[in-house]
Parts: sequence; structure tokens; C-alpha cells
Amino acid sequence: MKVAASIYGPVQDDLRLVEDALERVKHVESFPMLAKMLAQVLDGGGKRLRPAIALLAGKFGAYDAELHVPLAASIELLHTATLVHDDVIDASMSRRGRETANAIFNNAASVMLGDFMFAHSADLIARTDNTKVVRLFARTIMAIAGGELHQDMSAYEYGQDTMTYFGRIEGKTASLFATSAEGGAMVARCTPDERESLRRYGLNVGMSFQIVDDILDFAGDEREMGKPIGSDLMQGTLTLPSLLLMERYPKDNPIKKAFRSRKPKTDLVAEAVYMVLNSDILNESYAVARDFRDRALASLSVLPANDARASLEEIAAYVLDRRA
Amino acid sequence: MKVAASIYGPVQDDLRLVEDALERVKHVESFPMLAKMLAQVLDGGGKRLRPAIALLAGKFGAYDAELHVPLAASIELLHTATLVHDDVIDASMSRRGRETANAIFNNAASVMLGDFMFAHSADLIARTDNTKVVRLFARTIMAIAGGELHQDMSAYEYGQDTMTYFGRIEGKTASLFATSAEGGAMVARCTPDERESLRRYGLNVGMSFQIVDDILDFAGDEREMGKPIGSDLMQGTLTLPSLLLMERYPKDNPIKKAFRSRKPKTDLVAEAVYMVLNSDILNESYAVARDFRDRALASLSVLPANDARASLEEIAAYVLDRRA
Repeated sequence: MKVAASIYGPVQDDLRLVEDALERVKHVESFPMLAKMLAQVLDGGGKRLRPAIALLAGKFGAYDAELHVPLAASIELLHTATLVHDDVIDASMSRRGRETANAIFNNAASVMLGDFMFAHSADLIARTDNTKVVRLFARTIMAIAGGELHQDMSAYEYGQDTMTYFGRIEGKTASLFATSAEGGAMVARCTPDERESLRRYGLNVGMSFQIVDDILDFAGDEREMGKPIGSDLMQGTLTLPSLLLMERYPKDNPIKKAFRSRKPKTDLVAEAVYMVLNSDILNESYAVARDFRDRALASLSVLPANDARASLEEIAAYVLDRRA
Repeated sequence: MKVAASIYGPVQDDLRLVEDALERVKHVESFPMLAKMLAQVLDGGGKRLRPAIALLAGKFGAYDAELHVPLAASIELLHTATLVHDDVIDASMSRRGRETANAIFNNAASVMLGDFMFAHSADLIARTDNTKVVRLFARTIMAIAGGELHQDMSAYEYGQDTMTYFGRIEGKTASLFATSAEGGAMVARCTPDERESLRRYGLNVGMSFQIVDDILDFAGDEREMGKPIGSDLMQGTLTLPSLLLMERYPKDNPIKKAFRSRKPKTDLVAEAVYMVLNSDILNESYAVARDFRDRALASLSVLPANDARASLEEIAAYVLDRRA
């Protein structure tokens, strides 16, 4: 889904420079196959939310396009690298309606493609000439990999609670949103208070983003999402809606039955989706997502009311309202 | 195989600090499973050649253990991360006589383990507080991933020549040896000339190292190597000995037959190994490895004749003489 460019307000133009930087990443003249693989995964038309947040955060301090544009490009590259490895792990064949790298090439090549992209993003981050920013990003990838590992290890375990879920999505998703905002602020030499406010904004927007993602896995438009409804349950991943369903029917519910076999049957997953859709579980999940959005907005409230803040507020609203 | 500690001369003690730093990497208290995985891959008893080279290179300038030890630890971590991903890609079940991560855990977890280790190594490298060093390492991982990708893409292609092979092993192996030496020199603020000499030393030692590795795949002790003889050919990888065999028997040779099917038959690989062992091909391959070693030694000759240089010379000799 396209995001209306206007919500990116004061960084619209510089986001175009981010696209140019990503375009240059694809130009590996000495190795046409690698160039083709990079184009496949980078042309997917992502929403570029994370780079936008990084640029906007920079507007609260000494914004410098020479430093902020490579930073923002590196965040998108890093994010895409994690998706490439995720798709290998989940054996996903499509994402956002496009074939994944592992569907077209193979798993081996996709693992190396992801490594190449991680390294390239490190090279871009280092252009900020700030090793503190490099370390912030390194630790974020550690959190993301840890979060994914945790998700993989706990697949098909139905004894999880919502606290485990929140910890998992913080590592897997919210940490990079937090780091996008904090990284932009660090590069702009914001004060520690501003930096912390922006980090909290990113963290809470990221939580809200992932909860909505998990809701859309039940209620989204299959075509717009580019993946089938119920795909998390098919992969043994419990998300907020399915955890709420388990809470309501602790003894007898289709998820428990589906997970026991470690090869969920489609009819059991369909039953779980049906039960969720015929309850107020998605409303309750949206209320949780809204709560995180409100915390994000509260974090912004201590910052100057400028164009960048208005844009970050619009992003928080968009994250909640999006349909794909 | 153990390396006699004496060849590491002036950096023996600091190499123990590198081990301590690697030990700390394993302590992920919040996540026992990750700690277990890290121990599995880091306790393999590697030779620690690359960290030794990085420390020794630092001795030609302003050596600082506070910076050089994290650098050296990060190189070993990074090297091990590449092995973890390689083993996933090659579906290798053992390395150095130990089970691989993907053999014990699974591919998904091993991909994430590798990502975690790459990120952790970036965090350690950033402690040098030198973004030029970070960029040097980022580009090296790009070269390694590119080299592996190239190897994967050209698997079972029997129309390759030795120049392609040299390019491939430079990316896959020699680049990290070169970067170990250059990184150590950069952190010690060596002169550009010293840095270049050390980089060339590393590059040529690395080339020699990989050629010997490829020779040992024909002539090594299966138990000491921890993998069966002929495993490169089984995986469709042409190395110097097999390329020389193809050159001598361009029309009719078992490798060509074996690669045509993309599922090499063991008897054809055995025939190729037998033909190589009953020729002077391994002698010729050793001559090429010696040639690279000589270039490595020549690069050192412009540097002061100190303990560190003597140790680097011993390493170059060891790389050629090793049996596993």
C-alpha cells in the first residue's frame, strides 16, 4: 500500500534522496546476479516508514542531509535484510504481493544476499562517522535476531502469555523503530531528553505497528497483504488476537489442537480465525494498539510543536489506520 | 589442530584476553538457548589465526590492548558467523569434528545465530571508535558474502578457470586475512605504507591458507579435518587441484561426468580424488601456495625485523605446513 507522501511533510524531498541511495546499492556492476537479487527485494515498494522517522527525528536537532540520508537508507536496507532472512526461515514464497528472494533464487543465495545487505547497511551507517550510532544499530540487530530466534524456538508452544508476546515484538519490530528515531536524534546531536522522547515515540509506534500487523493477519485484505489470512497461526506463531482467544477458551480451542501436531490443519486455523472475527477480540487488540499510539504521542508532547512533530503524529495515526 | 602457542610470540598473552572476550560473548543470561548455541560454535577450538594476525599487525604502530583485543575478538566472531551461515548453506553436519549449529538446532535458528554474531562483532569493532575500521570490515563482509554467492551460483559449472578460482577465494577467505592485518595496523595508526605492507601480507597468507585447505580436501586426515575427503567436489565446488585435473583431461574426466548430473556420484568423485593423488597435481598446488606465501614474506621484508614480524613469518610457514 502506498502512503500519501504528504504525511512525510518536511522530509518528503530528502526521502527521494534516500530512494536514490537505495538505487545506488543495487548497482553492483561486477556481479549482475547480485544486482538482480537486490532489485528484487528493494523494489518491493515498502512504505519507508523507518527512514522517514529517522529523518524527522533529525529535524529536532542539527539536521544534516549528508549524514541523515545515508543513515535513513541504511535503516531501510537493514530492515529489508531482516525480511530476506525471515522469508528464508519461514519459507515464505511471497511478500507484499511479490515473490520473495528465496522463491526466485534459493535459500543459500538468500542467506548470503541478506548478509551482503547487512554489511552494506553497516557501511552506510559508518558514514555518520559516529561509532555510538554504529553500536546502537549493532545492538538493535542483536535484539531483532534474538526476537526472531525466540519466536522460532517458541513456535507451536501454546502456553505463552501476552507479556512474552510484547517482549517478542519489541525485539523483532519495535526496537528498529526506536533505533530509527534515536539514531536520527543522535546524528543531529539532540539533547539526551529529546533523544529519549524520540526513542520512546519510535518504540511505541513500533509496538502499535506490529499489533496492527498481527490484527491484519486475521482481518486484512489477502491481496493487499500479499499473504493468506491466518498465516501466523499456520507457522505456529501466537499473536495478540490468538493469545486473547486462548485466554477466553483455555481448555478447548482450535489453536491448541492445531499446535499439538506442529503441522496445523487448515480447518483448525480457519476455525480459530472465524472465532476471532466473531468476537470483540480484534476491537480489544486495536484498543491495545491505540494505547501504544497514545504513549507515542505523549512522548512527542514535550518536543517543540513543529512540522516534523506534526508529521510524526500523522505517522502514528497512519500506522493504526492502515489496511495493509 | 592446535597451534603451538609459541608461534604467536609477542601476542600470546593478549590472545588469552581475546578468549576472555569471546567467553563474555557467550554469556547471554536472559536467553539460555542462545548462550548454548554460541558455546557450540565458539568452543570449536579454532586456530585463532586471524585475531593473532590483527594483534601482531598492531605491534608495528601504537599498539593498544584496549582497542586491539576487542578488534581481534570481533574478527574471530565475524569469521565464526560466516562459518555458521556457510554450514547452513552447505547443509554441513560437522566441522572440525564437531557438530554444526544447523545439525543440532535447525536452519532457521542457525541463520539468526549468525546474524546475532555478525551484529555482536560490529558492536565490538565499533569499540575501536574508528568508523574507517568499521567500514573496512563492512566491505569485507560484502566481499565474503559476494564470494560465497559466486561459489553457490557457479556450483557444478565445469567451465571455470584458475583466475575465477583465485578471485573467488580472495573474496571468500583472503579478504578477511587482509582486513585482519590492515585493521590491526589502522587501529595502531601505522603509516599508509606499513598498512599496505601488512594488508598484502594478510591477503597472500589468506590465499595460501585457502589453497592448502583445498589441497587437504584431497589429501588431509579425514578425522583431523572433521569432514570427508572430496567434500568440495561432492558440493560442486571446483578448487585448484580439481581445476588442474580438468586442465589435463579437458575432454574426458570424472569431474565433468559427476557435475553433469548436479548430484555427483561417490564413485566418480572417488575416481577424481584417486587421479589427483596419483599425479603431481598436489605438488603443483603446493607450489602455488608457496608462491603466495613468498609474496606474503616479501611484503613483510620492508617492515622492522622485530618479534611481531618473526611471528607473522612463522604463521605464514605454519599455514603452508599444517595438516588440518
